[in-house]
Amino acid sequence: MLNYPAGHTSSRMRQKEIYKKKPKQSYASRGMSLEDKLNQSNDYYLQKGMAVIHKKPTPVQVVKVNYPKRSAAKITEAYFRNASTTDYNGVYKNHYIDFEAKETNNKTSFPLANLPEHQRVHMRQCIKHGGLAFLIVSFKAYQEIYLLPFNRVDDYLGTTDKQSITYEWIKQNSYPCNVGLFPMIDYLPAIDAYLKDLDN
Amino acid sequence: MLNYPAGHTSSRMRQKEIYKKKPKQSYASRGMSLEDKLNQSNDYYLQKGMAVIHKKPTPVQVVKVNYPKRSAAKITEAYFRNASTTDYNGVYKNHYIDFEAKETNNKTSFPLANLPEHQRVHMRQCIKHGGLAFLIVSFKAYQEIYLLPFNRVDDYLGTTDKQSITYEWIKQNSYPCNVGLFPMIDYLPAIDAYLKDLDN
Repeated sequence: MLNYPAGHTSSRMRQKEIYKKKPKQSYASRGMSLEDKLNQSNDYYLQKGMAVIHKKPTPVQVVKVNYPKRSAAKITEAYFRNASTTDYNGVYKNHYIDFEAKETNNKTSFPLANLPEHQRVHMRQCIKHGGLAFLIVSFKAYQEIYLLPFNRVDDYLGTTDKQSITYEWIKQNSYPCNVGLFPMIDYLPAIDAYLKDLDN
Repeated sequence: MLNYPAGHTSSRMRQKEIYKKKPKQSYASRGMSLEDKLNQSNDYYLQKGMAVIHKKPTPVQVVKVNYPKRSAAKITEAYFRNASTTDYNGVYKNHYIDFEAKETNNKTSFPLANLPEHQRVHMRQCIKHGGLAFLIVSFKAYQEIYLLPFNRVDDYLGTTDKQSITYEWIKQNSYPCNVGLFPMIDYLPAIDAYLKDLDN
């Protein structure tokens, strides 16, 4: 039921194969991308009736299409385009949810140069209209995942020329997400904690 | 800044050409699809800081990609897929907004057979979590556009075997949207009227 990105099916198949060979979650999840894990988590939340959050399809500029008789239209020339918004949005406990997921191999800081200005503008606008906007940041080296409210990053980056934030700063300013099997990235409790802080 | 669907640029260029020849809005807008008009309206709302609502990219299953040297990756085989959710979502006045746009040439009724079950399930889920879900229905023959709350259609369809609703029923159960130039389909006041009714 979800809009899986291209290649998802094969990665899910890969995942299943890995499960057969190695039942331990830590090995299986290591082979999956952050996106796959978030898709699985969103799928889980949807099935359990906990939230409706989807990844948006990757934008593609279609140039040429063939329409063969008695079979599906075939795109023969197309190009990937940059997303103009963030990757994920949806609704949870009456709140509009909007986020972007980023992963790093770096152990001491998180580079934000790859968070383009138009995505920052988009998240500022979402917040202005009452939505919750955040980053899901993954430190691969530690297998740690944090929910980082966008306005905090935005305020911080406004005070410095640096385009990276330290691991320590992130730990102090974000909400850790439990990593497991079902769901693989349990970020709804992190949203709850964030909402509680917003109320105080 | 918006995720325009494939072909948008050319239709916008077409639109400009039409404007040059025929300055009257009614002619120009007649040549545009409902989707183009909604994209223009969402763009207008975004620029004016009134709402953040985007059309999701059309989902495409990518099969083959070429990576030529010194130029962009070229997709050489891909297929259109059915969207698993609705086409539009975003945030307005703290509310999660979710809708699907449908157009008909029919003068007396609106066929809903082309509203697939998975989209209905999706809209039910959005409502359950506190979002606003509706259809934007366009009667081309009358150049009339209505915001039809999804739960009303859903309740109605639950009581009948018919998969179409009459024009009269729609007029009684929905909120008319002003049609103009900026924006072409002014549906935010229709959301306001719906919200007011929900509060009462």
